[in-house]
Amino acid sequence: MPEAETRNPVLVARQRAGFVERVHHGRVAIVDGRSPEGALAAALGDVGSAFLPRSSCKILQALPMVESGAADAAKLSPRHLALSCASHQGSDAHATFAGEWLREMGFSETDLMCGAQESGDAATRERMIRAGEAPSQLHNNCSGKHSGFLCQAKHLRASAENYVSPDHPVQKAVAAATAELAGEEIAGHAIDGCSAPNFALSLTGLARAAARIAAAETALAGVRLDAAIRLRSAMAAHPFEVAGEGRCCTGLMRAGEGRFAVKTGAEGAFIAILPEMGLGVALKIDDGNTPAAECAMTGILVALGALDAGDERIACWLTPREVNRRGLVCGGGALSQAITGLRLS
Amino acid sequence: MPEAETRNPVLVARQRAGFVERVHHGRVAIVDGRSPEGALAAALGDVGSAFLPRSSCKILQALPMVESGAADAAKLSPRHLALSCASHQGSDAHATFAGEWLREMGFSETDLMCGAQESGDAATRERMIRAGEAPSQLHNNCSGKHSGFLCQAKHLRASAENYVSPDHPVQKAVAAATAELAGEEIAGHAIDGCSAPNFALSLTGLARAAARIAAAETALAGVRLDAAIRLRSAMAAHPFEVAGEGRCCTGLMRAGEGRFAVKTGAEGAFIAILPEMGLGVALKIDDGNTPAAECAMTGILVALGALDAGDERIACWLTPREVNRRGLVCGGGALSQAITGLRLS
Repeated sequence: MPEAETRNPVLVARQRAGFVERVHHGRVAIVDGRSPEGALAAALGDVGSAFLPRSSCKILQALPMVESGAADAAKLSPRHLALSCASHQGSDAHATFAGEWLREMGFSETDLMCGAQESGDAATRERMIRAGEAPSQLHNNCSGKHSGFLCQAKHLRASAENYVSPDHPVQKAVAAATAELAGEEIAGHAIDGCSAPNFALSLTGLARAAARIAAAETALAGVRLDAAIRLRSAMAAHPFEVAGEGRCCTGLMRAGEGRFAVKTGAEGAFIAILPEMGLGVALKIDDGNTPAAECAMTGILVALGALDAGDERIACWLTPREVNRRGLVCGGGALSQAITGLRLS
Repeated sequence: MPEAETRNPVLVARQRAGFVERVHHGRVAIVDGRSPEGALAAALGDVGSAFLPRSSCKILQALPMVESGAADAAKLSPRHLALSCASHQGSDAHATFAGEWLREMGFSETDLMCGAQESGDAATRERMIRAGEAPSQLHNNCSGKHSGFLCQAKHLRASAENYVSPDHPVQKAVAAATAELAGEEIAGHAIDGCSAPNFALSLTGLARAAARIAAAETALAGVRLDAAIRLRSAMAAHPFEVAGEGRCCTGLMRAGEGRFAVKTGAEGAFIAILPEMGLGVALKIDDGNTPAAECAMTGILVALGALDAGDERIACWLTPREVNRRGLVCGGGALSQAITGLRLS
């Protein structure tokens, strides 16, 4: 229980008629993947303490599957790779695609260990309610990641049971890749919402891992170089598979038109991989608020010149509005000067 | 946009496998309604700045309806009074009750100005989806409050149109009652999610208003004394009408067995009215997180001796657990020492 006040800066706030309703503190790490040691190019707040990246690290969880040759053995397309890095919203399209992938590998929905989750897509959710269909594990936002775990387990001839155990070869490979790319020891792990282990690292470590994927051509070599480029390119090329209609990751990557990959995580985590600049960004909102993380990440991409502040496609995250149940605009969100004035060292 | 760090203490935090995932700062004001000036009995953080109480102040919005005689003229029962102070979850039971009340007054659903809202009750929501029914204004969590506004407008022979205008007699009466009970000027207003004006005041002012209702027998007189006792008693006696199954307000008041009334509001606001102690409590989470406000309020009621820490009926709010999609307990929440060690001056 942290009793002391945090010293992290305000990143985002929300007002209603000028009265502050939410203030969100947080921290940001930006690493230059082209520097020899993966040096910090900018930092706000405490970027050194261990935290849980949650789903923001999914590209790290998919990396061993590509490096090991499992992805090629299973003839995975870039769409499969994007789904393996996704927190998709469990639309019929996502669930069907995950189910087909499992079937092609000789698995089925019951082999997943992520648990059932109600679809996050309103049309799918309502269709299922009308049809009397219960949510399945395919609708779990992590079903693509878990399909990737099974793909690698099969390739390694490891057990397909309990592939979420931290002692399973699939998870050991994820922990090793995470530590190597982050340039630091794993600080422990927690059980995630989907039952997979989530490995703790510093925000700088997470940003460094993202930066080395962004600057793979200079920072990495061999199968890791190839895997990093394929995964970041697959995410950037297939924004729908990574999240879904109306979702922030999908919207930002569509606006980026293939130039970068971004990935959200629970509890206010978010990363960006910017190959053109060789940069990796990681942020965490102290109170875990997802809309605040979305606003902050959009603001950082604008501050770095990766997106245009006037791009209408990103307005709902950059300058969110409070709209009430009769459609009246009652307030909105704003970035702090710490974000809008962000400069690289 | 508040750029400076807040100085409010940590009230609640959440961890997963020991890693901190959310830290919630906030402020608390507790006022002794039996003291002549409505003095602070305890305070944490900034309790003097103006903020929006949102739905935590619904009892103040219902007070003029009872004081004016409108409630008696309409022969309202304690259940009606509880619904007028509610943020109910739009179950079929709540929506039907609100619809009956409107009909008895010669109004209908279309006279409401709160806007349609999808039911917060899963069984009702799914029944409506299966039946192809669109959400109505009766399902809006504020439909009871708006029915109360119409009840008073009718009694005052004021227009039933645009009763949410700050210039309408119904809203002017709410503003006057709020300022008088809070012992301070209204600091402005915002448009709430239901389109009614929400009047800004300090956290101390909100706690003082709650305290004067709690200590009505010594702090108030005449029709206001009578109205305060009837409304606080109606809320405490009808916890279901105030919120619904599974909801924090309902659960805490059921555990209180009639001894107190509590009311949540959007963006982390919460009040308690404790007649036995003559106390009013108001709290606000800086980042607007509702589960944190629920945990903090439960902790305050325990610290004040109004609830027993070992009462299983309140465990889900006092010591919330993170349970994942396979039912595994992955982490949980805890109160800060600022709350557990709270003492009255």
